[in-house]
Amino acid sequence: MSYFGEHFWGEKNHGFDVLYQSMKQGPVSTKELADFIRERATIEETYSKAMAKLSKLASNGTPMGTFAPLWEVFRVSSDKLALCHLELTRKLQDLIKDVLRYGEEQLKAHKKCKEEAVGTLDAVQVLAGVSQLLPKSRENYLNRCMDQERLRRESTNQKEMDKAETKTKKAAESLRRSVEKYNSARADFEQKMLDSALRFQALEETHLRHMKALLGSYAHSVENTHVQIGQVHEEFKQNIENVSVEMLLRKFAESKGTGREKPGPLDFEAYSTAALQEGNYEAAAGRQGLSPPGTEPARAGATCSCRRPGARVRDVCRGGRRRFHCPA
Amino acid sequence: MSYFGEHFWGEKNHGFDVLYQSMKQGPVSTKELADFIRERATIEETYSKAMAKLSKLASNGTPMGTFAPLWEVFRVSSDKLALCHLELTRKLQDLIKDVLRYGEEQLKAHKKCKEEAVGTLDAVQVLAGVSQLLPKSRENYLNRCMDQERLRRESTNQKEMDKAETKTKKAAESLRRSVEKYNSARADFEQKMLDSALRFQALEETHLRHMKALLGSYAHSVENTHVQIGQVHEEFKQNIENVSVEMLLRKFAESKGTGREKPGPLDFEAYSTAALQEGNYEAAAGRQGLSPPGTEPARAGATCSCRRPGARVRDVCRGGRRRFHCPA
Repeated sequence: MSYFGEHFWGEKNHGFDVLYQSMKQGPVSTKELADFIRERATIEETYSKAMAKLSKLASNGTPMGTFAPLWEVFRVSSDKLALCHLELTRKLQDLIKDVLRYGEEQLKAHKKCKEEAVGTLDAVQVLAGVSQLLPKSRENYLNRCMDQERLRRESTNQKEMDKAETKTKKAAESLRRSVEKYNSARADFEQKMLDSALRFQALEETHLRHMKALLGSYAHSVENTHVQIGQVHEEFKQNIENVSVEMLLRKFAESKGTGREKPGPLDFEAYSTAALQEGNYEAAAGRQGLSPPGTEPARAGATCSCRRPGARVRDVCRGGRRRFHCPA
Repeated sequence: MSYFGEHFWGEKNHGFDVLYQSMKQGPVSTKELADFIRERATIEETYSKAMAKLSKLASNGTPMGTFAPLWEVFRVSSDKLALCHLELTRKLQDLIKDVLRYGEEQLKAHKKCKEEAVGTLDAVQVLAGVSQLLPKSRENYLNRCMDQERLRRESTNQKEMDKAETKTKKAAESLRRSVEKYNSARADFEQKMLDSALRFQALEETHLRHMKALLGSYAHSVENTHVQIGQVHEEFKQNIENVSVEMLLRKFAESKGTGREKPGPLDFEAYSTAALQEGNYEAAAGRQGLSPPGTEPARAGATCSCRRPGARVRDVCRGGRRRFHCPA
C-alpha cells in the first residue's frame, strides 16, 4: 500500500521535506540499535564475569564437613552460567558488526535516493514560486476590474473607459499566464512528488525489513542463551537432587574415616604369654629389636615405622617382620 | 545406615576428634551458603539496574523516523527484564534471612551436642592413658620373667630364686591390673564413641536436610525467574513480529503525514470570476478584509489565521467567515 504516496500532500507542500528529514533518521536509528546492542553485550559480559567470580566463591567453600561436595555443584553451575552469558556477549558483538555493516549499505542507498530527489526539490520550489505570484496577479486583475466598474458607475468619458478596459484585459492576460504556469508547475510537482514519495517509502520499507531481520537475530541469540541457561538450571536442580544426604554421609565417612576396627579387648593370658614368647625371640635374635611374627599385642597399639598415617601395621608390612615402637 | 558408627574407629582413636571438628564445619558451610546467595543477589540487582538503564536508552531512541515505535517494544522488554531480576534479588534476600535463621538454630543444636560429647571425650582420654601404661607394665613383667629364667639357668640359690619369683608374680599382677583397666576403659570408650558417632551423624543428617531444603528454595527462585524471563523474551519476539513493516509505514504516514489533498489545478475562468465576486463582496463589506463564503481560490492557497500547523482552512473554520492572507 502506498502510504507515503497518499499522506504527504497538503498545504504548503511540506510533505517532501518531512519525508526527506525522516529518511535521515534511518541511519540514526541504525546507530542507536548498534548502541543498544552494545550496551546489552556489556551487561551480559559484566554478568558473566560476576558469575565467574561467584564460581570462585563456590570453589573456596570449605572442603571439610559433610556439605563440601555440594559446593562443586554450585561451582559447575556458576561456571556454566558464566559461559552462557559470555557466549551471548560474543553473539551480540558479532551482531553489532552486522548492524554497522548494514549502516554503511544504508548510507549508500541514501546517497542514491538524495540524488534522485533533487528534481522533486526543484519542482517544490518552482511551485512555491508561482504560487506566490498568483495572488498578486489576481489582486491586480481584481483592482483593474473594480477601477473599470467605478469609472462605468461614474460615467467617465469613453477614452478613460477604453484605457481602463485595456488595463483590465492585460491584467486578465497576466493572470491567465500565472494560472497556466501554476498549473504546469503543479502537474510537474504532483508527478515528481508521487515518484519521490514512492521511492522514500520503498527505502523505508527496505530499512525496516533490514532492521527487523537484525532484531530477529537479536531475539534469537537472547532466546538461545535463555534455553541454555534453562538447561544449566535444570542440571543444577538435578545434581542437587542426585547428591542424597545418605551419599554425603557415606562420602564423608569414607574420605575422612579413621578406620573401621574398634580397639579389641585384651586377654591377660594371651598378652602375657605373647610377651614371654616375644622376649625369648628377642633374646634369640640378639635383642636386635625384632619381634616374632604373629604376636601382635594390643590391637590398638602396634605401629610400624614405614606406615602411612592411620594405616594399620598389617596393611603395610605384609609378611615382613614388625618393629614395635609403642603398643599404646 | 550408620556410616559414622563404622568409619571412625581405628588406630589412636582419632575418630572422635575428626567428627567433632567436622561438626564445627556445619555453621561454616551455613555462613558460606548465605555469602554465596548474597553475592548472587547482588549480581542480580546489578543486572536489574543495568537493564533499567538499557530501558532508558531505548526510550531515548529517536521518536522520528519509521523505526521509532519499535523502541517502545525494546523499552517495555528491558523494563520487564529489570523487574524479573529485581524480584529474584528480593527472593534471594528473603532466602538469606532463612539461612541465617537456620544458622542460629544450628548453633543451639551444636551446643547441646557438644555437652553430650563431653563424656566421650573423657573416655577417649582415659583409654589413651591406660594404653600408655600397658607396654611399660608388660615390659616390666617380661624383664622379671627373663631375670627369673636367667637365675634358673645359672642355678642360683633358692633364696634368690624365690625373690625373683615374687618379683615376677608382682609384675604379673600389675600387668593383669593394667589389662583390666585397659579392658574397662576400652569398653566404656566403645559404647560412648558409638553413641557420639550416631549423634554426630544424626546432627549432620539434619544439617544436610536443612541445607538441601535451602538449596531447593534457591533453585526454585532462580527457576521461577527463568520462566518469567522466558515469557518476556517470547513477548518481545511476538511484539516485534506483530509490528509489521506495513503497520510502521502506515503509523508513520498517519502521525507525520502533511495531508492527503494534492494541490488542485486552477481553472482560469472560475478563479478570475471568484476573484470578481470576492471583490464585490469585499467592497460591500466595506473592505473589512472578509471574503465571501464558498469562494475559496487555489486549493493550495487558502489559509486561516487561527489554523493549527498544516490544517486546512475548512478543517478549522467550519461555517465561519474566512480571512485570506495568502492564496499561495
